[in-house]
This record gives sequence, C-alpha cells and structure tokens, in this order.
Amino acid sequence: MQELLLIGIGTGNPDHVTRQGAGAIRRADLILIPRKGAGKSDLAGLRETIINAVTDTPPRLSYFDIPQRRDDDGYLRGVDAWHDAIAARWQAAIGTSPEAKVVALLVWGDPSLYDSSLRIAARLDPQPRTRVIPGITALQALTAAHAIPVNEIGAPLVVTTGRQLRKNGWPQGVETAVIMLDGECSFGTLDAAEFDIWWGAYVGMDEELLISGALDQVADQIRTTRAQARAEHGWIMDIYLLRRRN
Amino acid sequence: MQELLLIGIGTGNPDHVTRQGAGAIRRADLILIPRKGAGKSDLAGLRETIINAVTDTPPRLSYFDIPQRRDDDGYLRGVDAWHDAIAARWQAAIGTSPEAKVVALLVWGDPSLYDSSLRIAARLDPQPRTRVIPGITALQALTAAHAIPVNEIGAPLVVTTGRQLRKNGWPQGVETAVIMLDGECSFGTLDAAEFDIWWGAYVGMDEELLISGALDQVADQIRTTRAQARAEHGWIMDIYLLRRRN
Ligand SMILES: C[S@@+](CC[C@H](N)C(=O)[O-])C[C@H]1O[C@@H](n2cnc3c(N)ncnc32)[C@H](O)[C@@H]1O
Ligand SMILES: C[S@@+](CC[C@H](N)C(=O)[O-])C[C@H]1O[C@@H](n2cnc3c(N)ncnc32)[C@H](O)[C@@H]1O
Repeated sequence: MQELLLIGIGTGNPDHVTRQGAGAIRRADLILIPRKGAGKSDLAGLRETIINAVTDTPPRLSYFDIPQRRDDDGYLRGVDAWHDAIAARWQAAIGTSPEAKVVALLVWGDPSLYDSSLRIAARLDPQPRTRVIPGITALQALTAAHAIPVNEIGAPLVVTTGRQLRKNGWPQGVETAVIMLDGECSFGTLDAAEFDIWWGAYVGMDEELLISGALDQVADQIRTTRAQARAEHGWIMDIYLLRRRN
Repeated sequence: MQELLLIGIGTGNPDHVTRQGAGAIRRADLILIPRKGAGKSDLAGLRETIINAVTDTPPRLSYFDIPQRRDDDGYLRGVDAWHDAIAARWQAAIGTSPEAKVVALLVWGDPSLYDSSLRIAARLDPQPRTRVIPGITALQALTAAHAIPVNEIGAPLVVTTGRQLRKNGWPQGVETAVIMLDGECSFGTLDAAEFDIWWGAYVGMDEELLISGALDQVADQIRTTRAQARAEHGWIMDIYLLRRRN
C-alpha cells in the first residue's frame, strides 16, 4: 500500500458525500468496511450504498470486525489498547490485497472530529501516506436540520462530550456548547431554566428526530423520545446544541 | 418565492460541494451571487465554476453588491445595520425574478459557522421557508490539509475569533482552540512557548499555504508568509488551530 485515504462521508445521508469524497472512493483499489456485530449501528449497508452510488465498478471491499473496547484499566488506556487492536485488524484486512496501492476507509462524519482513524493509521507499519478528505459532521447536520447558526455573532463555541459536561459542568466563557458522544442525556446535570436546546438523533437519516425549545420545557420529551427510539432501532446517535438564555 | 436554499459550498475547492448541495443548485430557479468590488475576495467566479460543474443548464443568476460594514456605532450595531442593508439587496435581487419559486445562495463553508445568511434570511418579508444544506467548513479543510484530529481523545475544543482571543486571552478549560476571522495574527498575544500551531491560508484552494510547528518556532514565518500572500493576492483568508503543549 502506498496511500491511505480517510474519506469523510457525512452522517448518514448518502448525499452528504462531497465530489472530492466520491473521487477518492473511485481512486481506491481497496476499501475497508468496519462491522460491529448484529443489532449494532455499524452502518456497513450505508457505506455500500454510498460506494455503489458513486462508482460504476466498485473497488474491492474488505470487511473487518471492530473489537470491543474495555475500560477496566481506565478510559484513555482502554482507548489506546482499542486503537492497537483495530490497527491490527486493518493490517490484516489490507494484507488480503497486497496488490492494492490505494486503500480507503469511509469515515463517519469528518475524520478530524471525535474519530479514531487518524490515530489508528499512525500505528500502521510501514507508514502509508495518509490523506484526509473532509466530510459533513454531525454538528453541521444538526444545525442545518434546525436551520440555526452554531454561534452567536462573533462569539465562541465549545464542542465537547457528555462525559466532559457531567464531569466539568458548563464550559467557562461561552454561551454555546455542542454535546456529542452522550449516552446519558447529560443536559440533565445543568440548571434547565438557564438554557435552550436544539437536539437531534439520526440527523440526516430517514429516522431523523428533532426537538428544540427551552430546556426545562423539552428535557423530558427528549429523554422519552430518545429511550423509545433507542429501543425501537437497537441503537441511537444523538447530538445537541445548548445555548444559555439571555 | 416559496423557498430559500442556503447551500454550503465548502471553502474554495469546487469539489467540496456535496451531492446534496449539487442537487439543491439544480433545484434553484434563481441564484443570488454576492459581489464585493474589485480586488476583493468576493469569489463570484468560484461560485459560477461550481454552478457550471453541477448543472447542464444553469439557473438564472442575479448579482448584488455587498455593502460596506461600518463599526463607528459599535461592532454589534454595525453588524445589525449591515444585515439590514444586505437583506434589502437580496430583496431587490429576488424582485427581478418574481416568477422564481426556489431561490438559492451559495454560502462559503457551512451556513451555520460565522456566516450571516440565516440572520439576513430572517429579515426577508414575506418570510420564505428557509432550508440549510451543510457544507465543509474552513475548520475541516484545515484539519484535513494537515491530516490532524481537531480534538484530543474525548477532549473539548473551542472555536473562536481573533477578536475574542485578543480580548479574552486563551479560552478557559480547553487545550485546543481554532481561531477564525483573525486579521491580526492574534496568536501573538499568547505565550508562544506554550503552544503548537497548525496554520492555513486559502485552504482547499490552489493558493493553499500551510505551516505548522511550535508557535515560538513558526510565528514569524506565519506573519511573513501571510503578509506576502496578502500583498500578492490582494486578500487573504486564514485559520489556525492552537494546542497547548503537554
Ligand atoms: C464517534 S463520534 C463521530 C463524529 C463524526 N466523526 C462527525 O464528524 O460527526 C459519534 C458521535 O457523533 C454524533 N453523531 C454522529 N452521527 C450522528 C447523527 N447522524 N445524528 C446525531 N448525532 C450523530 C453523536 O453525538 C455520536 O455520539
Ligand atoms: C465569515 S467566516 C466564514 C466561515 C465559513 N462559513 C466556514 O464554514 O468556514 C470567514 C473566515 O473563515 C475562515 N476561512 C474561510 N475560508 C477559508 C479558507 N479557504 N482558508 C482559510 N480560512 C478560511 C477564515 O478564518 C475567515 O476569516
């Protein structure tokens, strides 16, 4: 392998793919497709849909199983070991096509944002030339779906995780925060009277759910909607923007 | 007009356009194209390139001049009056095609991020149904060009402006900040020994310039490169990511 392409594909709408992303898919000799196991959101089907939409003769696809992450040794150590394990799977999947010069991965959203691909790629040996093709993030899909700006005029914003919000409270010095990777409706740890929320699940997908309003008015509705949707689909991805009320 | 489409087109690479964006361009009856006056970065040409790349018969284009913003009454008031003035230009440009049902604007980057289009659209009378199509932001173009993650593992990040950085110093509670809208190399107000920087100008465009390294090592190189490029092209757009060194 000479080149590794990390191609951002957006967050579930096949039409999030850019012309650059489509071109990169066509240039690939081999595409690695992750699988998470039954009933999980591996979205292998969506990746195949995208590949078929932008190629006449799809490149070779090689599937690999994503190992379980273990946190018993601490969060960051768990992530580190997990990246090692995924890198080994990539290496094995690449090994099945030794003639492939350009290998690609279709990365959910944008490869820069809360994604491991760059860190896994850095573990490959020998090191390929790695190129990143940007993609629409869940953050942009959320603000587009609600037709809202992410920032107030000239003002800063924070992008953070549910875990951070629970641990550290509302981020200092900003009126706007976007929360990702939150399995626990961590907005519940804030004073609901102080915030407005714009929430979305499966944003950009057919299953898209959107709720917005004063946090004290809609928090319960979000919790219920989220729990029902998660039970129904077996998995959920959600994201929200919180803005302090003036 | 029944519908207004705010279409994110990415940051200068015509191939940043998504399939959704291309579809929206084809659906438009009328596209409004901003003009800033000679020697400025209005990039009307790039918008025409994109329209021609994705349509067989381009829709009608209507050009409008962007008025000057005045800050003598304070920054936020200046922005407010400026939005009013642009809304009036949009209204006039739309008025030239009363039969157009779907009107579109091609918005630089993503319409949610440091962009006025949603706020201007809210001033139109009668209010059209406004739909936002997300686009690749300068932030993502920057991290893709440098092939770096925007966040450290599970950690938050701030997106802010040069003005904010100068006024409020390094944002609290984060190790990573992305600075946009900075005409003054405001990284100069920080303790250079504490940070790494990934800087880019004209990111995604043919003129792209990238510099990265320890801030105390590359700050002068960035200043010089920026000044030269700005003199040569007559305009510049740059963005950078700062990360506190461990
Ligand atoms: C591991 S991160 C990956 C983010 C991705 N790289 C991006 O650019 O959006 C996964 C998180 O992204 C958010 N997310 C991704 N896709 C989403 C979608 N379609 N709807 C809502 N949230 C989504 C959720 O917060 C989820 O926990
Ligand atoms: C008014 S804001 C618009 C941002 C845009 N909506 C986006 O999503 O990126 C303009 C700022 O974006 C950044 N920017 C936009 N395009 C850029 C490019 N091609 N290269 C570097 N910076 C860019 C610069 O910081 C510039 O001051």
